[in-house]
Amino acid sequence: MSGRILTPMAIASVLLFFGVSSCAEQQTTQRPEGLSDLFQALPTSVVDPPENPGTPEKIELGRMLFFDARLSRSKLTSCNTCHDLTQAGVDHLTRSIGEGIGQRNTPSVFNTAFLGTISLEETTKEFLRSHEEMDLTGVEAVERVSDAGYLPYFTAAFPTESDPLTFNNIANAIAAFSRTLITPNAPFDRYIAGDMSALSDRQKIGLTLFQDNGCAGCHSGPLLGGTLYTKFSHLQEKGMSHDFGAYQVSGEPDDQFVFRVSPLRNVALTAPYFHNGSILELDEAVRIMGKAQLGFTISEQDISDMVDFLNALTGEFPVVEAPKLPSK
Amino acid sequence: MSGRILTPMAIASVLLFFGVSSCAEQQTTQRPEGLSDLFQALPTSVVDPPENPGTPEKIELGRMLFFDARLSRSKLTSCNTCHDLTQAGVDHLTRSIGEGIGQRNTPSVFNTAFLGTISLEETTKEFLRSHEEMDLTGVEAVERVSDAGYLPYFTAAFPTESDPLTFNNIANAIAAFSRTLITPNAPFDRYIAGDMSALSDRQKIGLTLFQDNGCAGCHSGPLLGGTLYTKFSHLQEKGMSHDFGAYQVSGEPDDQFVFRVSPLRNVALTAPYFHNGSILELDEAVRIMGKAQLGFTISEQDISDMVDFLNALTGEFPVVEAPKLPSK
Repeated sequence: MSGRILTPMAIASVLLFFGVSSCAEQQTTQRPEGLSDLFQALPTSVVDPPENPGTPEKIELGRMLFFDARLSRSKLTSCNTCHDLTQAGVDHLTRSIGEGIGQRNTPSVFNTAFLGTISLEETTKEFLRSHEEMDLTGVEAVERVSDAGYLPYFTAAFPTESDPLTFNNIANAIAAFSRTLITPNAPFDRYIAGDMSALSDRQKIGLTLFQDNGCAGCHSGPLLGGTLYTKFSHLQEKGMSHDFGAYQVSGEPDDQFVFRVSPLRNVALTAPYFHNGSILELDEAVRIMGKAQLGFTISEQDISDMVDFLNALTGEFPVVEAPKLPSK
Repeated sequence: MSGRILTPMAIASVLLFFGVSSCAEQQTTQRPEGLSDLFQALPTSVVDPPENPGTPEKIELGRMLFFDARLSRSKLTSCNTCHDLTQAGVDHLTRSIGEGIGQRNTPSVFNTAFLGTISLEETTKEFLRSHEEMDLTGVEAVERVSDAGYLPYFTAAFPTESDPLTFNNIANAIAAFSRTLITPNAPFDRYIAGDMSALSDRQKIGLTLFQDNGCAGCHSGPLLGGTLYTKFSHLQEKGMSHDFGAYQVSGEPDDQFVFRVSPLRNVALTAPYFHNGSILELDEAVRIMGKAQLGFTISEQDISDMVDFLNALTGEFPVVEAPKLPSK
């Protein structure tokens, strides 16, 4: 499954988001000359799935559940424990620590609405059930939420349902809240929209290097990644990882060391890097990518300029109030 | 040390707060007839200690540090882990779990500005150093904060200091933020200020019982507790606790099973109860207090009315935004 877009649905989603992006940027004068079509601005709004529209009541409920540690076996782990909204949606740990120690580094929750390759609703349910994450069965999750006094909030969020406090609706609310966690208007987005002053000269050089060196071949689209899977065996070869990637799920020999290409939005804020969080510094991550994925040594000056460019992918984070959680 | 106010400073602090309270309530028409002088409204503002005034920059820095788990050995525990601002400043666990398992139930961080008996600055440093809480030395705490990129925030918060990033200033900032965590204007405060409709009839009966049964003898002042220490040996006698209280610190036989009288502000939101968190329900806590501390069985109807009154101690919580933390 190396180097290809996962599903037709994913393509459709990405195209849909491009459409939104275009609408939101009617004031755009001109896309900078020479900028590859592989780059797209991050949309400034999200299109909800028709089966789970994000009403204010549902988003508010999802915000509460996102911060509520009672949704984990120990009552110590909330979604925010690993996907810390104060820290760009990550925990800055090597690997995730929830109810157990996860196998991989926590990816940011910000902009997952634009991933296209996953269902946030289904992924949320997987997180709640996973032994390393929240470690609750669906029945236990519903009990926890009910015992905490959430019923009125589910009734408000799902007003047409006679029995609104369900495992599916826990996931629906959290997914609806997650869709509000987007970080548009990064300097690179303003540059794509025609504001030539949004990037520094060094960042423009870094962008050209990122494009011409071939990074954008995989790190493309509005997230600069996230849609493709590709082989990345460098860490294994160096003895730094024993993670077989997609092979661990599929059992297909071709899937050995195949990983999802990481989205690069806000990458300057989401250290440590790679699937096992083994690399602490962004310049070292770029250095390794050059050797391992592009097959050549990137000069130190070029690495520095590319890191400058990657800093231009830091967007505007939404203000999130710490919710007041119900108490039984 | 049973049954007396701790220090002359504590008395001075309490008197000072009463002064503030009076100023803030000039619109008060009349204190309800028959209401004991033991009850005082929660002040609507805090008087900062002169050596640590709460400037906006310092409070903002303190808010960031309060939410930053990098201020603990594992990088998993923040102040907010146990003193969860979304959950009335507690974790709803039996005993606190930070870097280790604490000996006691987490008291709320809200309204600790009015305790008078502790220095928030010194207490914060104890928390940072404690093996069960954050488990960092002062030097390690400064390193963590420096590595995380906090220097500009310390420079802004302590502009007259040439070396602002110190262990003392970490504590000063967190303490300054903690002083913003107050919950005034509970129904009981409005009642004290003369609004007779602020309490229901049942709550007024509960208040009279609370006063006449003698609860207010210890649970007095603006926090309805927090200033006295007294003997509470019931849990030990029932085999539910092996905690010797103040004796564990002083070694004085008279201090066996002597504990601080819990403040009752927001008590309806801070289950479980007592120093070891062994009691899950507020009515059971009142039932035990009657038998163990007052020496008689409170009728079930009276317990119900007193619990209604205790619900009138829930104040207005400040809105706290989840801060955006620096990233190195």
